[in-house]
Parts: sequence; structure tokens; C-alpha cells
Amino acid sequence: MAAELTGNILVAQSGGPTAVINASLAGVISEALNHECIEEVYGGLNGIQGILNEDLIDLAGESQQAIRGLRYTPASALGTCRFKLRREADYQRILEVFHAHNIRYFFYIGGNDSQDTANQISKMAQASGWEMRVIGIPKTVDNDLVRTDHTPGYGSIIKHVATTVKELACDADAMADHDLVHVVEVMGRSAGWVAAGSALAKRRDHPHDAPHIILLPEVAFDPNKFLDDVTNVLKRQRYCMVVVGEGLVDAEGNYITTAAGATDNFGHSQLGGIGDYLKELVDGHIDGVKTRSSRLGHTQRAAATHASQTDNNEAFMAGQAAVEAALDGVTDKMVTLMRGETDYYSCETGLTDLEEVANGVKHLPPQWINEDGISMSYQFVKYATPLIQGEVQVPYEHGLPAFVHLAKIPVEKHLRPHRWE
Amino acid sequence: MAAELTGNILVAQSGGPTAVINASLAGVISEALNHECIEEVYGGLNGIQGILNEDLIDLAGESQQAIRGLRYTPASALGTCRFKLRREADYQRILEVFHAHNIRYFFYIGGNDSQDTANQISKMAQASGWEMRVIGIPKTVDNDLVRTDHTPGYGSIIKHVATTVKELACDADAMADHDLVHVVEVMGRSAGWVAAGSALAKRRDHPHDAPHIILLPEVAFDPNKFLDDVTNVLKRQRYCMVVVGEGLVDAEGNYITTAAGATDNFGHSQLGGIGDYLKELVDGHIDGVKTRSSRLGHTQRAAATHASQTDNNEAFMAGQAAVEAALDGVTDKMVTLMRGETDYYSCETGLTDLEEVANGVKHLPPQWINEDGISMSYQFVKYATPLIQGEVQVPYEHGLPAFVHLAKIPVEKHLRPHRWE
Repeated sequence: MAAELTGNILVAQSGGPTAVINASLAGVISEALNHECIEEVYGGLNGIQGILNEDLIDLAGESQQAIRGLRYTPASALGTCRFKLRREADYQRILEVFHAHNIRYFFYIGGNDSQDTANQISKMAQASGWEMRVIGIPKTVDNDLVRTDHTPGYGSIIKHVATTVKELACDADAMADHDLVHVVEVMGRSAGWVAAGSALAKRRDHPHDAPHIILLPEVAFDPNKFLDDVTNVLKRQRYCMVVVGEGLVDAEGNYITTAAGATDNFGHSQLGGIGDYLKELVDGHIDGVKTRSSRLGHTQRAAATHASQTDNNEAFMAGQAAVEAALDGVTDKMVTLMRGETDYYSCETGLTDLEEVANGVKHLPPQWINEDGISMSYQFVKYATPLIQGEVQVPYEHGLPAFVHLAKIPVEKHLRPHRWE
Repeated sequence: MAAELTGNILVAQSGGPTAVINASLAGVISEALNHECIEEVYGGLNGIQGILNEDLIDLAGESQQAIRGLRYTPASALGTCRFKLRREADYQRILEVFHAHNIRYFFYIGGNDSQDTANQISKMAQASGWEMRVIGIPKTVDNDLVRTDHTPGYGSIIKHVATTVKELACDADAMADHDLVHVVEVMGRSAGWVAAGSALAKRRDHPHDAPHIILLPEVAFDPNKFLDDVTNVLKRQRYCMVVVGEGLVDAEGNYITTAAGATDNFGHSQLGGIGDYLKELVDGHIDGVKTRSSRLGHTQRAAATHASQTDNNEAFMAGQAAVEAALDGVTDKMVTLMRGETDYYSCETGLTDLEEVANGVKHLPPQWINEDGISMSYQFVKYATPLIQGEVQVPYEHGLPAFVHLAKIPVEKHLRPHRWE
């Protein structure tokens, strides 16, 4: 047991929202309120960007109802950002904010870029002699963080995608007066985890259920093979449902469609349009079929009404575990999810070095992709099925989900405004 | 009470599927099984197209479990079509099928084109002296059928759209490191009922909730006014959510974007792409904003997991009422939904002439659109709110909705194959 460290908590969210990132926030807040050495529980608005602006809110001042409501409210209740710390002056400013508000515990909920940010901040604080504990809490629909069995957010997005594929398959199956090819474009920039998850839409022992073709960034795209695969499905049945991850690449590793080389603040290519591309490919090369394309877009990561209870519980647990670890004296770690060894699914939290997680990418194991390159193996289904179990019961009011809105009581600023230059 | 007519029932589904069209089918089947003068309950596969092919199935042979499951399974379990009867020989063929299978009751679940088809078939049967009763059952997500307060399918699609808008608004609200314009394209070819329904996403007394701009086919689109409206929203808040009906037109009544004049079998223009068009319009004319567009596409009408229990109940009730009316000797009518006069919402079924419904289009009352042209009045909200109440509880299995699949036991064919020419 490390020496007790008395002071305030700062928690913030970063990167793309998910259906359960607020459950992790709720986990942090609920656990923090149990410990006397924690004096104030502050939230940083819009991730690191708001912290630079000294935009803190008093989370202990929120109603119990609002904190409970975070369990089923999608997206980042604290706001998020995709800002990357680069300047020495920015790091110094963060340290000033920590000093000004006696921040001794910093929890950053995010993906690999965010874990990298948390790691840098912790190093900087240590170098300056400011005693504090920094713990990362994993979050990403992409499931591409290393050192964790899976990532909070992933179970819910694949539950949403598989549910939508099942619903669309009912629709496609009904339209039997012509052959139909329906392309569904889903998220997944550098790894095919989300597209792969659509495989769960197949009922056991019904290999011909949708989706019929899954296109993954891990498998180089070959237009001729794709057209052959579609043709083969249409020989067998009247519709062919294709699920494609947005980051599809060719044999040279180039994205199939990238809008004029646009990139975000982290240098990632901005993708989109692969669904329409594949639709047009079929239109141009296979006669007598009707084609559709759907781009699920941001609805995928915001679909709280399709969230997995298992995912939600684990996201909450990860938030709690971060606080517990920090109070035990741990720092510079990210909470991980560890699956039990037994056949019956179980999950506990663990810890890994922030350093290890930062900027790593976990790809789909190649052996989980069948030899045909367009379907998932039994091992993948065994891995992913437990993650989508249970349905989050969102309360409804007047016929619609009653998401909560935080009061966001501002913490008084002590510093001069930040110079953004 | 009309003379009892003993014979068989034929029920079929037509046009675009909805989340509750199978509830109407379940209503027909459940009610039919209560009456001794009904001998067999047949389903026609793929609407009128399957009837021409003599593709009938024995619905009485389906399990009770499957019939119950129709209550929450989206899309047309019997299959559907968009085929339009034109040739005299086709009408004659249908009569032959009726004779061959002693069809004395025909129920057609569909939109205005389908009610027209039912009307023509009934006239033809009467002219030939074949005694039968023909009742239409309304169905369309578009809510554009005349002579009925609203149409089964509408409540569920707007519940889905409003739910999705609320979820996307959480996501947009979280991304506050730049101004954001998010365009959501929804269904609605000739009327703006679906786009209008998104107005329900606003909480009472929160006029600044999303959606901030609703673009309806009833209001001629003016790009300059649109850009002004977006700019005004962004003066007030950090994101602007736009919901647009796919059938948006300019002052001359031309669709804003129509892909090369493509039309379906009924001569309707095939639409799409208006969301991307608006996104590009903002990109090109308003500096410093980030833009997104979502095309909800076919997920809208298949979203059983977001269906309205009120809508579902009314769809079932419409199916039952059709059978009851036919057994009472009624023919050539469509079932309607009639709202009670009191403030407390109630709904009963009525009947109207097929003739009146066929090919009519119900537009949004102009007085339900506010003077700003981009928001809905209190009267619309009062009209639409009761239609989305209650959540259909879809059973889940292994983490996903357990939709049913009919056994589709074929009825033996008695006729030679149809000559399609």
C-alpha cells in the first residue's frame, strides 16, 4: 500500500465517442466518492483541449440521477477533442492547471493516442517533481488497443452493426423480385474488428445468413475476386449482403477510396465512400442486379439503444478499477480487460504500462479470418459472442430515450487564459 | 349481416417493407383462424407477382410461435414486390388463381399503389361474377395515404429517426472543438412526414435541441436561405443538425438531386444524395466548420428494435379489422385509423373506399410547418407524439434480436405456369 495521497481528481474523455464511454466516467465518479483522500472530483471539458483552457467542472455537484444516467447516455458527456499536445508550452500549461487545482489523480479515457498523451503528461509531472498518479482507461469502438483482451465500446458497436445487418437482411430478403446486392459500410480505419463483428448476425448452423461477404482492411482487396464472390452468392440466393470496413486497402496497401488525401490531426487518413464504390463496381460489372449501399456512419458509435450490457458493465468496471489502482499507488498504467481461462466467459480488470499501449495497434489475428478471405472463423465468433450479451435498458420518456445532460457546474479559474498562438 | 361466404383467404404484402407490416399480417392470420367459414389461410409470396406465379403458402401450417414472432419481425415476411398490373392477361390470370384455390377473401397490405391494385382486382372479379371480398390494409412509412388519420409504419419510422437524431446529437455535442454541421437524410419521396417526425427529438421546452433545421419537400429549397439558417444556428450553438427528406424540391418543383432521371416501375423518380449535396453546399460556402452527412437508408424502415408499440398494436388491429369487415360482407374498402376526439389519444379502425385511397397523396398540412419553413408547429407535435409511444420488446437470443422465419409450406399448384411474355 502506497502512502496516501490527498488531493483532487481530474477525469477527461478523448477521441471518438462510444455508446459506453460515459459508463467509464460514471465508474470513476462513483468510485472516487468512496474515498476520503479524494477531495474534489473535477471533469475536464473537451479532453486535453479544455484542460489547457482551465475548463473544469465540478462532477461531485452533479445529481445522483445524472451520474446514474451516464450509464446509458451515449457519446462523451464531458465533451471530447482530437487535439494533440506538441508544444513544450502546452505541457507546462497542463502542469500549471494541475498545481492550481491540486490535481493529484488524472484519469484519461481514450484510445491509443490518448494513452500516449496521458503517458507524456505523467512523465512531465514526474520530471517536475509534482506527485500525482495517472491512469488511462481504454475506450475505442475499433478494438485495436494492444495488451487488453478487448476494449470497452467494441461490444456495443458490433451489437449495433449485427442488429442492423439482421434488420437489413429481413428487408433485402423481402425484396425478392430481383437479385439484390446491399453494401453496408462500417467503421474501422486500421483494423477490421467492426466489420468482422457483423459475422455474429449469422444464426448458428445457418451459414447462408447475412452477411455473405465481409471485407476487411487485413485482406488486400481484389475487385475481380469480389465480383466473383458476389456472383457466387447470387447463384445460391436472391440477395447478397456485403459488410465493408472503411479502411479497405489494395495489394499495395493503398486505401481503395480516400478523399484527396485528407488527414486528421494525428495524420490518419480521413476515409469514406468505400460502400458507394463497391455498389458502383457491382452496377458496372454484374448485369440484372439491383444495388444499395448504406453508410452507418456516426450512428454506429452513438447507438446507446443497441448497447451491450456486458460492454457497459465492463466500461463501468474499468472506470472503477482506474480509481482503485491510483489509490493503491499505481501510476503510468492503463486498465486492461482480462478474459478468464474457462469456457464460461468471465472478465476481470488488469493493468499494463501506458508506454506499451501508446500508439500500438492490435490487428485481427490472421487465423480468425477464413481461407476464403471474406468470412470469420469459429475462433472469432467464440471471442466476440460474449461481448454482445445483454441489452442495456435505456429509460424512455414520451416515447424516446431519456439521455441525461450534465449540469456542468464550472470550477472557478485561477490562471490567465491559455495562449494558443 | 351479409350472407356467409365460405372459402379461403389470400393475404399478400406489397411495396416497401416497414417495421410493423408483419404485425398486420399477424392480425389477419389470428383473426382468420377464429372463423369457421374460412377454410384455408393462404399467403401470396412477393405480392401480386407471386400470385401470378401461383406461389401460395399455407399460413395455417405455420407454428404459433412463428405467427407470434411476426409481431416483432421487420420487413415483409411473405416477400413483396413493386410490380404493377397492366395487361388484361395478368388480371385474367389472377382470377384463374382465385378460382383454382377458391379464394373468397383477398387482403392486400400496402400503400396507395397497392390499394389501387386491390381495387382493380376487385372490380375485375365482380365483373366476372366471382363472389369475393377485397379489403386493403394500409401500410407505408411515408404516412401519405389519404382518408386515414395516419398509416401503420409511420409511428415506428419516426420513432427510429428521432431516436437516431437524439443519439447523433449526443455525439455532435461532444465534438465541440470545432463548429459542426451534421446532415441526416431520411425517407420521404413526395411528402415530408418522416423528416417532420424528427422534430419529436426535441425535449419539451428545449427549442434549441436537435434537429435545428428540418427541410421538407413541401417547402421549396432555397440554398441561400439554407446557408443563412445554418449560420444563424452556429451563432447560437456549436453544432447544427439538419434533417432532410429525400424528396426536396426547388421553387420550380424539380428534385434538388436526381440521379440521371431514374424512375421505378410506377414512374416515381429514384432519389438519393441530397444529404451529401447539402454537406458539400456548407463545405463550399461556410468557412471553418466541419461537416458530416448520414444517409439512414433502408435501416429506417427495418428498425424493429426501435419500433413503436402503439404503431405495432394499430398495425395488428388493422389486420384484424380487415378480416372482421370482410366477414361482415364488406368489400372494396381499405381499413383506416381514426383518432378519438378527446385530448387523451385513442384510435379505432374505420373503413373507406379503395377508390378514394388509390393514388391519392396526403401532404403535411401547411399550417403544421412554422413560418420559418424549417421547424414544426405545436399542432404537428401534438399529432405525432402519441404515435411513437411504447417500445416493442423484441426477444433477444445470444445477444441479437430473434426474428422469425416462416416455414413457407407451399400450396400445391393447379395451373400451368404464368406466361410473363
